[in-house]
Amino acid sequence: MGRVIARRPVLRLGPGGERKRPDSIAVEEPLEIRVDGKPLAVTMRTPGHDVELAHGFLHTEGVIGSVDDIREARYCDSFDDDGRNTYNVLDLGLAPGVPPPVAGVERNFYTTSSCGVCGKASLDAVRVKTRFSPADDPMTVPFDVLAGLPDALRAKQQVFDRTGGLHAAGLFTATGELLVVREDVGRHNAVDKVVGWAVLGGMIPAAGCILVVSGRTSFELAQKTVMAGIPVLAAVSAPSSLAVDLAEEAGITLAGFIRNGSMNVYTRPDRITTAAERLTSPA
Amino acid sequence: MGRVIARRPVLRLGPGGERKRPDSIAVEEPLEIRVDGKPLAVTMRTPGHDVELAHGFLHTEGVIGSVDDIREARYCDSFDDDGRNTYNVLDLGLAPGVPPPVAGVERNFYTTSSCGVCGKASLDAVRVKTRFSPADDPMTVPFDVLAGLPDALRAKQQVFDRTGGLHAAGLFTATGELLVVREDVGRHNAVDKVVGWAVLGGMIPAAGCILVVSGRTSFELAQKTVMAGIPVLAAVSAPSSLAVDLAEEAGITLAGFIRNGSMNVYTRPDRITTAAERLTSPA
Repeated sequence: MGRVIARRPVLRLGPGGERKRPDSIAVEEPLEIRVDGKPLAVTMRTPGHDVELAHGFLHTEGVIGSVDDIREARYCDSFDDDGRNTYNVLDLGLAPGVPPPVAGVERNFYTTSSCGVCGKASLDAVRVKTRFSPADDPMTVPFDVLAGLPDALRAKQQVFDRTGGLHAAGLFTATGELLVVREDVGRHNAVDKVVGWAVLGGMIPAAGCILVVSGRTSFELAQKTVMAGIPVLAAVSAPSSLAVDLAEEAGITLAGFIRNGSMNVYTRPDRITTAAERLTSPA
Repeated sequence: MGRVIARRPVLRLGPGGERKRPDSIAVEEPLEIRVDGKPLAVTMRTPGHDVELAHGFLHTEGVIGSVDDIREARYCDSFDDDGRNTYNVLDLGLAPGVPPPVAGVERNFYTTSSCGVCGKASLDAVRVKTRFSPADDPMTVPFDVLAGLPDALRAKQQVFDRTGGLHAAGLFTATGELLVVREDVGRHNAVDKVVGWAVLGGMIPAAGCILVVSGRTSFELAQKTVMAGIPVLAAVSAPSSLAVDLAEEAGITLAGFIRNGSMNVYTRPDRITTAAERLTSPA
């Protein structure tokens, strides 16, 4: 955990006076992901679980389909001014026969200039690239279980408790069992680490699982959910329009504003059980 | 505002029962930014103020120095399946003599593979690229004014009020006067729109001003602040380590956790006045 939290002096100003003290801050450092030696992407992330992050990134971008598509992962020689390895450059070797990512690949399947750049084109690109059909996942989750997951995620946010500066993502079973939680200064990185954990464990597609995120839901997070074959995405805050559209098209359940025993369900509410039963039973 | 908010059906589940109703959702759509016809970047943004967004993006990436460096900005012909212009592709023509951005430019000055990829290299890149010295800005801001800015920003978040789904950024004077506020599903886009507004108004460097953001402070947001010559960055939530490091090196004031009349000041507290005077005066 040494590189996850940094200490910086801070001046606290307020009604109680003025106080100088060291403060715990979430670490942010660049990570360059290379594939067979060629730089593919740089992301600003919280160090730790980098191999998971890279696997999750490559999987949700459609480059790999399983852990077998990666031959090796190793930190490159990358040195700072003091000659220390930065551990900020990770090279992944593809297994024989795995096509390399096309040069200049953009994150999130952004469409190129040959067609109209619009939300629908972004949705189409996900449909073409995904290897799974989470729409067909017959899993169900009780309302009460789903309503409690954000608190369960929050209880595991160790670094957030000390810094207030991290997003979190967690993968749960349909009975509410926590499988993994990851924190990062970037919310897409937190999700990539969770998906990468599942890739490394041979758990992709993560059928029957629920992905919980600590903030809002963007197209990017919905896309990663679909690519990992996860049937339910649950968030503490609001979704964007394109996140709802993608969830609709891909047939995953999208819930938001999960707070105080209530939630908004935007798509596929049929997977959420008990609530309807409870509501129709006599009080 | 037509494309800023979308309506989607939502099923509200909770103790009060089950209710189906239309919900207001923040719109997210891709925007492709081209320079002289060549695609440079795609960002997922909330439509509106796209010309500001593009100017702010090009300025904070170091491509342009003022509004005079842009000859024209126009939406390209980009059509969806129904033959309607998507208004999601914006082409900016550079003025004669302005060097085009290098091909494959990465956002945020990510270092390339020739040197060590580390936080310090990221800081160095900003120092090389910035055209201004916000460190030398002699402005000061009273503690009470600064403490009130997040609430002032929040009061202007029209779309957030209806969707709960947007980040906001605002530019204020040292006396607390609001100059501009912008909202977006992406927090870097909200800041780009604010900076672009200042670029278009010939107000860059925005000396004497305060940039307020609704969430956390990453390296990316601190970098944009420095590039725009803004001496104070104030946030409702926590900063990352690299944001603090950049603020320190660039000599801007960075404040966070501005809530309930208190704040954490990470760098250059000398610009915040009154607090010390008030605290040392008899109660």
